[in-house]
Amino acid sequence: MSEKKIVIIGGSAAGPKAASKARRLDENAEIIIIQKEKDLSMASCGYPYYVGGNFPNREQLICTPTGVIRDPQFFRNVKAITAKTETEVFEIDKEKKVLKCRNSITGELFSQDYDRLIITTGSVPNIPNVPGNRLEGISTLQSMQDADYLRKVRDEKKVKNAVVIGGGLIGVETCEALQNSGIKTTVIEILPQLMTFLDVEMAKLVEKHIKSKGVNIITENGLAEFIGVNGILTGVKLNDGTVLPCELAVISIGVKPNSALAVSAGLSAGVTGGISVNEFMQSSDPDIYAAGDCVEIKHLISGKNVHAPFGDLANLQGRAAGENAVLGNSVKFKGTIGTGICKVFDYGAGSTGLTEKSARENGFDIETAINAGPDKPGFMNGKLLITKLVINKPDGKILGAQVTGPGDVSKQLAIWAMAIQGNMTVEDMINADLPYAPPYSLAIDHSITTAHIMQNKMKGRMKGISAYSLKSKLDAGENPFILDLRGPDEFAEIALGIGEKLIPLGALRKRIEEIPADKNHEIICYCKVSLRGYEGAAILGNMGWKNVKVLEGGIGAWPF
Amino acid sequence: MSEKKIVIIGGSAAGPKAASKARRLDENAEIIIIQKEKDLSMASCGYPYYVGGNFPNREQLICTPTGVIRDPQFFRNVKAITAKTETEVFEIDKEKKVLKCRNSITGELFSQDYDRLIITTGSVPNIPNVPGNRLEGISTLQSMQDADYLRKVRDEKKVKNAVVIGGGLIGVETCEALQNSGIKTTVIEILPQLMTFLDVEMAKLVEKHIKSKGVNIITENGLAEFIGVNGILTGVKLNDGTVLPCELAVISIGVKPNSALAVSAGLSAGVTGGISVNEFMQSSDPDIYAAGDCVEIKHLISGKNVHAPFGDLANLQGRAAGENAVLGNSVKFKGTIGTGICKVFDYGAGSTGLTEKSARENGFDIETAINAGPDKPGFMNGKLLITKLVINKPDGKILGAQVTGPGDVSKQLAIWAMAIQGNMTVEDMINADLPYAPPYSLAIDHSITTAHIMQNKMKGRMKGISAYSLKSKLDAGENPFILDLRGPDEFAEIALGIGEKLIPLGALRKRIEEIPADKNHEIICYCKVSLRGYEGAAILGNMGWKNVKVLEGGIGAWPF
Repeated sequence: MSEKKIVIIGGSAAGPKAASKARRLDENAEIIIIQKEKDLSMASCGYPYYVGGNFPNREQLICTPTGVIRDPQFFRNVKAITAKTETEVFEIDKEKKVLKCRNSITGELFSQDYDRLIITTGSVPNIPNVPGNRLEGISTLQSMQDADYLRKVRDEKKVKNAVVIGGGLIGVETCEALQNSGIKTTVIEILPQLMTFLDVEMAKLVEKHIKSKGVNIITENGLAEFIGVNGILTGVKLNDGTVLPCELAVISIGVKPNSALAVSAGLSAGVTGGISVNEFMQSSDPDIYAAGDCVEIKHLISGKNVHAPFGDLANLQGRAAGENAVLGNSVKFKGTIGTGICKVFDYGAGSTGLTEKSARENGFDIETAINAGPDKPGFMNGKLLITKLVINKPDGKILGAQVTGPGDVSKQLAIWAMAIQGNMTVEDMINADLPYAPPYSLAIDHSITTAHIMQNKMKGRMKGISAYSLKSKLDAGENPFILDLRGPDEFAEIALGIGEKLIPLGALRKRIEEIPADKNHEIICYCKVSLRGYEGAAILGNMGWKNVKVLEGGIGAWPF
Repeated sequence: MSEKKIVIIGGSAAGPKAASKARRLDENAEIIIIQKEKDLSMASCGYPYYVGGNFPNREQLICTPTGVIRDPQFFRNVKAITAKTETEVFEIDKEKKVLKCRNSITGELFSQDYDRLIITTGSVPNIPNVPGNRLEGISTLQSMQDADYLRKVRDEKKVKNAVVIGGGLIGVETCEALQNSGIKTTVIEILPQLMTFLDVEMAKLVEKHIKSKGVNIITENGLAEFIGVNGILTGVKLNDGTVLPCELAVISIGVKPNSALAVSAGLSAGVTGGISVNEFMQSSDPDIYAAGDCVEIKHLISGKNVHAPFGDLANLQGRAAGENAVLGNSVKFKGTIGTGICKVFDYGAGSTGLTEKSARENGFDIETAINAGPDKPGFMNGKLLITKLVINKPDGKILGAQVTGPGDVSKQLAIWAMAIQGNMTVEDMINADLPYAPPYSLAIDHSITTAHIMQNKMKGRMKGISAYSLKSKLDAGENPFILDLRGPDEFAEIALGIGEKLIPLGALRKRIEEIPADKNHEIICYCKVSLRGYEGAAILGNMGWKNVKVLEGGIGAWPF
């Protein structure tokens, strides 16, 4: 074997993974990680759970499953890898294959030569350029230091009010952590919805749940400035002039690839600012690989390059980069389908593939279906799942799925992610053979029911209308006949109150004269989850009514 | 629309599903269900949970999600379907298209004509032909009456000892229900292992867990006779003469298709005794369809016909049969990949596709890999998963996966079931994009790690040895050098005690002289789950040792 010198810049997720993989493939290589921060191999996706008090010690974020801290000594003894922490690389000379480095503690400058370089410098949080953005009490949740700071805030119990700026994945996770710590939290978002990885009607369902936990959500209103006294944050001012008093603000308006060092060295970067790499995770310089949040990768459905700063992808990319750096290009990382999930209080919420919005933007001719229903039988305490499926109309290929609710969201998303990666169509899902037993699922799994609804729509057996479209119709003064097909007990418990008529499904045939006689009158049927809505619509359709629609997802997917 | 007369024989799962689907597609058809039992639409897979006291009322097994009992009145009002319960069909005249029926209560005989018939007569339990098999205290868990009986046994708290005969899926679920009800339970199985949908080393892991709950398991010993006094069961005698005193015995030695009525009518049946159907669920008579446990279907991997009595497949087949009966052949049910799961106390256990045993029996050239590891990070209280993956060696195609452990087994099986149905290979799984967040999974999902292990084996980077092979080696007096690479604390807590040497991974390079100098000596490395085992083996392999193996799954998959 060779005695290559492999140097890795960055020691969070992709870097240590690349280093470990390289070591397993070449015992003789010299492998060096240069890490700006003090810690190594941080489970950064766990920060919100540390902040929220789910576990006591920061060490749990940086230790192996058996409790050994992954510090430089661990890397030295277990992996024969040299880890230089608190050390910054400030220049890459790719012609001479030398890095210029600085020890942040001693200020010592030194050079580090390499045969192969792997850049895993991660991402940097976007910071809004508004007055007051350096006040004490403002943080991000991007680094271990941020996590330490916010955990301290939690433990000290002094902060009463917090504002989270930005309602993306990290924003929502941070909001949960703070609210669960007894801090009254407001999330502000300049867009009309939180979590743009979900279509608006799905996001609104999650927002409703977040609000039910006492969180204040303000959308379509951006940050104007941070207000402070004596250098300490006292409030957040919004674009419309509203002032939210608070002692803590967490900025979570996204991240950008930390590619400045690579770009300065003359490496190519792409449209997103991420380092350009090929399928081997190789940059424009053949001896330099890059992986993780600092690169841009291909979206396998849209074909476009994207910045996908996800911990799982960083690890997989690191693994590929490590192997290729040591063996030459041999393994590929082809791209992402954009699968993501987050826990939002008692809900899961996630997406895989394209949303309706992104599919339309990418020019697909699509059909969508919404399904609301339990994950397990009632006698096993099934919990609600709401799924929105997006397919390519011409061939039925599955393009994307979004799932939320208190049910087993993670399994549903995994199923759809696999369906997309297996190039499957709605037809393939109709009779899918999935693991069934009452403690785990319904006899017909929620994902399969979703495919059935889509099939019914594709065959023209069901015309759907989304909660949003119905609301717009009503707001526009239209007058469809709205038919609630549930039982009177259910109606007494909760009703939409949008001028609906209650006729229980079992009485529909007998009370058919209560339906508008005009067979062209628009009729919208629903129930709790719209299965009875669908059956009612089928009865009316079979009896000659021509404009019958089903409110997709029924009351279960009604976000208003 | 036509005014077809659709008659369905059988009212459990497939029958009502077929009837409901037919109704939704044709409001004018006359639809009649003839059901032998008193109840309709029973969630029969829920019986063990009713017996075990997971919920209070039998009605929960036969009601809609909103609590309405699915009785004849429900079918009449909601679906305009006539359900004739407690009525037996004793002859099908397929030439005249007439059924001969008997009301079990009144004894009344009547004829029922049909245009299209759907047979969904389910399965019947195998009953061992041994002395005493009609004693009081012997039951199956196949019908609602069985469930009622066993629940009564539970509630009365008189039975102290029970024997479950047969350790398949129902046997294991019944054993859990009884043991959790305070009844000391023994499971007897004539084969060397319980749960033959798992390979033996996987089944042994589950058996170990079952035993830890106080259940007595006896394998390789069959039932000789039931012993009783005054017609009441007092014990079970085994083939080796052992007598197990008990007041309750539950027979669960499998089921066979209830196809006698169909066969008498001249319909074709297959190798398993199930009614032969094509992909449209159509029998050898074009006007007769069949679905559910009474048919045999194609196994999509082996290509063979199988009897697959699973509730989920019954529903899907019923749906297809209902549509085809009313519209003519239009939708297909292509077959099964044999996906199944059951809850076993705190473990899940299941399989999808082929086991190693079945793959070999079907002539595949296979490779296997075992992975033991947590489902989530330690700081989120991850629980152990053990997966055995089976692939087709020539093209890497995934043939099957078995998963057990206290972790999220259901999601893992769903992922592998989808991989098989998407015709995916190990290569496709290496960089799979699955939903990751710490509350739901590891950064590299357990399924992906399993694929990585398989890839390492396929590339010759890792030689694996199963717990079973190692045990055989040791029993045969072989003398491999066994290397435990965990820390001393872990070793003090639990050790295999098979002559292993403890050298923590971090000390291996320094203590290399403790490894046998002969580079051809067989060395077997392991740790808790064999990741460190793999790293240790890589170090030794890189240093020139030629016969280094990794104990697959480490201590996590050690069943002895």
